[in-house]
Amino acid sequence: MADAIRALAIDAVEQAKSGHPGMPMGMADAATVLFTRFLKYDAADPRWPDRDRFVLSAGHGSMLLYSLLHLTGQAGMGIEELRNFRQLHSPAAGHPEFGEHPGIETTTGPLGQGIATAVGMALAERHLAARFGKSLVDHRTWVIASDGDLQEGVSHEAASLAGHLRLDRLCVLWDDNSISIDGDTALSFTDDTLKRFAAYGWATRRVDGHDHEQVAAALSWAMRNRKPTIIACKTIIGFGSPAKAGTAASHGSPLGAAEAAAAKSLLGWNHPPFEVPEGLKTRWEEAGRRGAGTRRSWLKRLAKHPQREEFERACTGRLPEGWQEKLAELRAAQAAEKPKLATRVASQKALEALVPAVAEMVGGSADLTGSNNTNVKGVPAISPGNYAGRYVHYGVREHGMAAAMNGMALHGGIIPYSGTFLVFADYMRPAIRLAALMRQRVIHVLTHDSIGLGEDGPTHQPVETLASLRAIPNLFVFRPADALETAECWELAVKRADGPSVLALSRQNLPALRFEAGENRAARGGYVLAEASGPRRATLIATGSEVHLAVAAREALEAEGIPTAVVSLPCWELFALQDEGYRAEVLGSALRVGIEAAIRMGWERWLGQDGVFIGMQGFGASAPAEALFRHFGITAEALVATVKKRLA
Amino acid sequence: MADAIRALAIDAVEQAKSGHPGMPMGMADAATVLFTRFLKYDAADPRWPDRDRFVLSAGHGSMLLYSLLHLTGQAGMGIEELRNFRQLHSPAAGHPEFGEHPGIETTTGPLGQGIATAVGMALAERHLAARFGKSLVDHRTWVIASDGDLQEGVSHEAASLAGHLRLDRLCVLWDDNSISIDGDTALSFTDDTLKRFAAYGWATRRVDGHDHEQVAAALSWAMRNRKPTIIACKTIIGFGSPAKAGTAASHGSPLGAAEAAAAKSLLGWNHPPFEVPEGLKTRWEEAGRRGAGTRRSWLKRLAKHPQREEFERACTGRLPEGWQEKLAELRAAQAAEKPKLATRVASQKALEALVPAVAEMVGGSADLTGSNNTNVKGVPAISPGNYAGRYVHYGVREHGMAAAMNGMALHGGIIPYSGTFLVFADYMRPAIRLAALMRQRVIHVLTHDSIGLGEDGPTHQPVETLASLRAIPNLFVFRPADALETAECWELAVKRADGPSVLALSRQNLPALRFEAGENRAARGGYVLAEASGPRRATLIATGSEVHLAVAAREALEAEGIPTAVVSLPCWELFALQDEGYRAEVLGSALRVGIEAAIRMGWERWLGQDGVFIGMQGFGASAPAEALFRHFGITAEALVATVKKRLA
Repeated sequence: MADAIRALAIDAVEQAKSGHPGMPMGMADAATVLFTRFLKYDAADPRWPDRDRFVLSAGHGSMLLYSLLHLTGQAGMGIEELRNFRQLHSPAAGHPEFGEHPGIETTTGPLGQGIATAVGMALAERHLAARFGKSLVDHRTWVIASDGDLQEGVSHEAASLAGHLRLDRLCVLWDDNSISIDGDTALSFTDDTLKRFAAYGWATRRVDGHDHEQVAAALSWAMRNRKPTIIACKTIIGFGSPAKAGTAASHGSPLGAAEAAAAKSLLGWNHPPFEVPEGLKTRWEEAGRRGAGTRRSWLKRLAKHPQREEFERACTGRLPEGWQEKLAELRAAQAAEKPKLATRVASQKALEALVPAVAEMVGGSADLTGSNNTNVKGVPAISPGNYAGRYVHYGVREHGMAAAMNGMALHGGIIPYSGTFLVFADYMRPAIRLAALMRQRVIHVLTHDSIGLGEDGPTHQPVETLASLRAIPNLFVFRPADALETAECWELAVKRADGPSVLALSRQNLPALRFEAGENRAARGGYVLAEASGPRRATLIATGSEVHLAVAAREALEAEGIPTAVVSLPCWELFALQDEGYRAEVLGSALRVGIEAAIRMGWERWLGQDGVFIGMQGFGASAPAEALFRHFGITAEALVATVKKRLA
Repeated sequence: MADAIRALAIDAVEQAKSGHPGMPMGMADAATVLFTRFLKYDAADPRWPDRDRFVLSAGHGSMLLYSLLHLTGQAGMGIEELRNFRQLHSPAAGHPEFGEHPGIETTTGPLGQGIATAVGMALAERHLAARFGKSLVDHRTWVIASDGDLQEGVSHEAASLAGHLRLDRLCVLWDDNSISIDGDTALSFTDDTLKRFAAYGWATRRVDGHDHEQVAAALSWAMRNRKPTIIACKTIIGFGSPAKAGTAASHGSPLGAAEAAAAKSLLGWNHPPFEVPEGLKTRWEEAGRRGAGTRRSWLKRLAKHPQREEFERACTGRLPEGWQEKLAELRAAQAAEKPKLATRVASQKALEALVPAVAEMVGGSADLTGSNNTNVKGVPAISPGNYAGRYVHYGVREHGMAAAMNGMALHGGIIPYSGTFLVFADYMRPAIRLAALMRQRVIHVLTHDSIGLGEDGPTHQPVETLASLRAIPNLFVFRPADALETAECWELAVKRADGPSVLALSRQNLPALRFEAGENRAARGGYVLAEASGPRRATLIATGSEVHLAVAAREALEAEGIPTAVVSLPCWELFALQDEGYRAEVLGSALRVGIEAAIRMGWERWLGQDGVFIGMQGFGASAPAEALFRHFGITAEALVATVKKRLA
């Protein structure tokens, strides 16, 4: 049965003239044991909520996964799809892509992401088991990871967190083949990996990855263990290839026709390309139906379960009835009370309205809870052995946090939100990118969003970070101007089911600027906050903590007889989705001046050829916030002077 | 003597009304032992090349470092500077900033960066000792790291690399205080850290961080060890503060006047703020002169050393005489021979001309040597115990690689260059940002720079990465169009002494477009590659692998009687530095069409209000490269059609 995987991997890579045969050939045995005897799944319904999750962290070995999906009889991964491996519109893409086939649990390929995402899936399972009970939620997360996955830093962060939280439903099969692209891993890697994982609180074991009984015994042991487990499967990369097995030559290129034939001959595989003999295919399909009975029993339990509706709602990502009510009350109160708040504090108030209403929201922070204002009073933390809480102390592990959040969202039943400083978005950027690529609802609360954080200085002051996040396709970047707009942005981020959002929030207090709460004006991405008193001579366009500067400048300009409008632009991505007429009306045809305590990049789109930008030209400095805004010339006075000079 | 550090830290944080007193108070004892008995330095010349390096990885505890610089009598860190802690223009910034004071070896604050940077410093020392001998290069790298540093993934990558390479001149003092911002580290962190480091091949030891003799014994032991060492210093954060010691309350805020007074009273410190009694100051200044004799002996050895000139040249970063000669020959040959090469292969050819000529260049790749084309035949790798090589197999550790490279550049005597895929710039972004902030000459070779990489699909295809890198201040992003322009860009990157560079290079072959090699035309960032045959009606502006599409489109348009120019824009940052007249002349006033296999962000700057952009709108796909360029409409035909439509 394992040789069927090997043969399909060889054939598909040959056909595509590119790909990675070595890993599927090396791990075919361990994967066969997992899929035929341990993994809980039903090929007839690959999205069954209580299935075990399987994550191929070593995503370059995608043919291992596609072969398994094909052999177990999953719809949508027929032999034609395998023949079209790595071709346009084929679900069998170069690396597994979430959304291309229901049997693909997550997008992998960037090393380290899969294992860290799996930690989030395992955490989601424990949390939902605590919420809905073992009769509905009782499954495992299995990972195949490579040497490269374990060299990546994110594997440290995620494994350390998993060990701390004792996520005992997580089992990693490490493809310990001692080969990476540059050659023998000994060129660069002499860790005692199992000792490292033991230091995180994992249980560890070593097996011959080609010995099915050893693998099976280790998987049984993993299921009995009360810790996360890692099994070092000693394997030979490209197993079966007479000339290339055990070498980097089998890693990332086709074997070549002659070597492919020699490998099949060595394996005793005498079938034409892409053909699996009937009997073998039948045995594989039987394996794919192994979980059918379990699934039927589960469906029966679900049908009678008192939390059925709630469970189904949570799993499908529908928000509960009335989830916006408290938030609407908050917005109305803020319109009336005009609070002067840092938007990070306003965010906490929004969370106080949302978290009790949306049971799926699970928050956390990378050790900046008090600074990010991400926790809500009375919400308990998730702790080792107690998963009913709804807040995760992620530790100083931004990257692991973001990747785990992807796993929580992918698992279903959870809307994860995080906290760290905006500048540290850089630490988690590879995982944010994957959230955008996979269109997952994860929300990052990123505070201290400019030089306005003051004394901590340039290492902590984002200047290019907003631009770099706005560059990521499918990511919504919100930068609200006051408390009310913060509540609006939170509403939009939670409502958005098809992609991630970032909220960039101020450390410093900001005056209230909005005094009506009827319509969620941030929903259009940008809007006229204050119209000019007469035909516009200037439009001041700002985001976040600079909007109040624009409002102050407008007052001064109006007082001098210069009719001036102020536009708040809290979400560029939403604004870009509006029709051109609306955008033109908002931005106007008068002089446009942009103001943002960040670099100019991207602003040209809104300012046009003749617009002016007031912001940062380079990195910040260490000083109190007000001193910095003056030093860098980001003030209402500078706005006024610029407008008057341009109109003169 | 340690209490002097504590008192100054308390006073400066009180005065600034912000900062982190807890860490300096906790680590004052261990730091005192290090600076008074072990660290090799001479306060009279903080840049002496053979000094030990001291890295405060826990940069938030900056007052620890500033106190030490002040107490040991370093110029430029007087009591006025400490009084101006965290104020504009003070060298005593919120976090240590490289360049603010010569005693600050590196910028720290973003956690994990310091320890990883130190690994590069320790590697640089070993390499230069192999090159120049022990009589000139024989020093150590000492690090103070926090719990947070060790939670960050980059600490895993760097520590694993250091253990592998047996960097025995590296010693980390871990401030094991069990407190992080959210509270007790046990909230999120239960690693057995010493076991983890032992798994990397480090020697480990545990001491009471307040017991000077225990610390001294451990530092002696570290100096005798043949492995990198980590010493867990069990400390009490905020040591001396009666109410806040041992709690997160002392971490990131002033103690407050009452508690500050109580702490000083408990410590028996009866001196006014910012005053250190004469006798104590004298003892500290004597400690600061401890290394003076050693430095004088070293200067005498240097004066007689046969490699003196070469050593001084390398340390100051001056390039050797004639370093460009082979590169000039290569450029001339390429102008004549017009090779069709992937720019990653052209980069290898440039390296073949540069690496033998510039002994400071030390290359490497994050396990993609063959794909990045970063190695040069005959150049040996650095391996454990043998540091004379000039190539580092960094393993799949992009972040650790980039941070270590920062350390190599900061150490001096090395121009580090790396390799990975462009999309994985995200993994090392925090370290790239620091290189830009510190203006260090590090060069990243980032290949597979667009959908042109083909089948590996969207996880590997950068679309937003160019924009996100161009957003980083001080970073030069080069994207050359052909072999000759690649050589030009390499020349510029090596010559640039005051900041980092990135070379974005194609996987796929590209035709030669440039046929003269006299002037380095990339030096102006952008230039007219092909002028229109008559008054311009269109200007096609492109970078890298899309320039040849613009050239093909120009031919077609010219054939149809539409005079069209082509502009190559290999480095936006250099182009932006040219005078406005030059830029206007290059870009012209005719219809501007930009083409780049990436997102539009930033292009508005060159295209103006009426320009058109042809590129990517979102993530890529898995298919052969040619199919993808067609699928996404990035072709010469699309350019031609766009121009004709716009001019119609």
